[in-house]
Amino acid sequence: MADKRNDASLGELLAPYAGRVEAGLERWLVEPGTPETLAEAMRYCVLGAGKRLRPTLVHMAAEAVGAGALASEELLARAAVAVELVHCYSLVHDDLPAMDDDALRRGRPTAHVRFGEAMAVLVGDALLTRAFGVLAESPNAADASVAGPLVGILARAAGAAGMIAGQVADMGLCDLPDGPEGVQYIHLHKTAAVIRAAVEIGALCGGAEEGQFQAVRQWAERLGLVFQWVDDLLDATGSAEQLGKTPGKDAGTGKRSAVAELGVEAVRRQVEQMSRQAVEALGPLGPRAGTLRELTGLLARRTH
Amino acid sequence: MADKRNDASLGELLAPYAGRVEAGLERWLVEPGTPETLAEAMRYCVLGAGKRLRPTLVHMAAEAVGAGALASEELLARAAVAVELVHCYSLVHDDLPAMDDDALRRGRPTAHVRFGEAMAVLVGDALLTRAFGVLAESPNAADASVAGPLVGILARAAGAAGMIAGQVADMGLCDLPDGPEGVQYIHLHKTAAVIRAAVEIGALCGGAEEGQFQAVRQWAERLGLVFQWVDDLLDATGSAEQLGKTPGKDAGTGKRSAVAELGVEAVRRQVEQMSRQAVEALGPLGPRAGTLRELTGLLARRTH
Repeated sequence: MADKRNDASLGELLAPYAGRVEAGLERWLVEPGTPETLAEAMRYCVLGAGKRLRPTLVHMAAEAVGAGALASEELLARAAVAVELVHCYSLVHDDLPAMDDDALRRGRPTAHVRFGEAMAVLVGDALLTRAFGVLAESPNAADASVAGPLVGILARAAGAAGMIAGQVADMGLCDLPDGPEGVQYIHLHKTAAVIRAAVEIGALCGGAEEGQFQAVRQWAERLGLVFQWVDDLLDATGSAEQLGKTPGKDAGTGKRSAVAELGVEAVRRQVEQMSRQAVEALGPLGPRAGTLRELTGLLARRTH
Repeated sequence: MADKRNDASLGELLAPYAGRVEAGLERWLVEPGTPETLAEAMRYCVLGAGKRLRPTLVHMAAEAVGAGALASEELLARAAVAVELVHCYSLVHDDLPAMDDDALRRGRPTAHVRFGEAMAVLVGDALLTRAFGVLAESPNAADASVAGPLVGILARAAGAAGMIAGQVADMGLCDLPDGPEGVQYIHLHKTAAVIRAAVEIGALCGGAEEGQFQAVRQWAERLGLVFQWVDDLLDATGSAEQLGKTPGKDAGTGKRSAVAELGVEAVRRQVEQMSRQAVEALGPLGPRAGTLRELTGLLARRTH
């Protein structure tokens, strides 16, 4: 069940990671030579807002397998920033008039409302490009051979067979099976792919062994579904204040959601079952995965 | 002076490289798991059209410094494809209604006219993401430590302080100096940055020494200006048939161009002078740079 004390605990768990992520974003977001108007729009779309869940997963996954074994601390921090930049770009482009046409995001006007549509397209492009630049520019020589594979994981998850496929499906621009299977396709691609990539990237930076890697990967895929289902529940039942965006939007636009397909109660049961299965996947990691276990429960019960 | 025999020679010089690039694009463009509608739109925007100038520069630069010394042949081919994908993405997004609102590109309907605006945004995003994925996924172990730096060069050139800054300026979304200086800023960022990156990437793959690297870099920056000035001349004087896009478009929309600032004759003189200076920059490379010299002259005199 959703409850507000739970949200306080989720906030407490995420806060120290979110602080590191925020510092990294402030450090690496804007390259020298960026026009000030563009830099301002990039900061508006990235800084000081959002739960920072995905980059936090990078850090948590690295800790859960034994942080820092392969990559430097700096590359780990850069990887977290890169993952968040990909997430922020996807929000900016998804909100565009030609896409979901949203006016409100994280409680503020969306990028195209604030800066115009041309700038919103360009800001999204800039954030996506910067994500890969941040990953590639670690000054530590030892990171050179890790950065490439990290770019590969992120590009696959964010690309035409990952997150973009999910948005294509969500916009009704490709064929999908009817019913819950079609909704599952959208969730696995649009949300779970980048969440899984965040965890894979963290695990790779942390020098995961094959068994550990498979364990966190499976956990992440299940967590991604839990996260999206809870989003669907909140969209169906939440208020604008809690959400920071227009509630009931999905139902209003005829967008497919788990709640629309299955009803609130069935989705709540799915969330409980899948979060148990997510925790089970962490078995091989032992006590080191305590934070991931705690996070699973808190995300399943969040109210915004 | 522009002449048609020159275009035939330019075509002959580019053809063998363009063929390799086309084969690479066909091989790496579409990842397994991409929705068919998205894959179709990606192919439409990339395959079978365009001069392939930028990826050809990757190959030519590698040859001019001593091809293949650092990277495998496959990484070189992947790098060329990545550069072309970045170029294709930029065309798709630049053509959007919120940007230049162009209906015709390479003699065919633009992506948003053909597939709708949402798909055009997503296709651009997919091509940009794929560019970095293609670079990162070379299966040769020895390429791992080169792929990262290549990603960095491409991201910088295409990013907020490079090509995107040029588009921001071209759209009038940031302050610029009046007169030729402002136009020069747009050209250096919007066009020359990626052309220079293509040459740097090729030179890096080819194992360039520092002197060679600086020489081709300087050549590329000058070539980028020549290329853009000739574009401006053709836009002011060419026909739709020659251009494959709407001529006089720049003047009609009040866009800033070198011709609008300086007049046709002055720009022609600039082209001649700058292409001489470009060739001079190649001095340290000796006879190996013959192809780059030939290309400089042919591009300065092209008619489409």
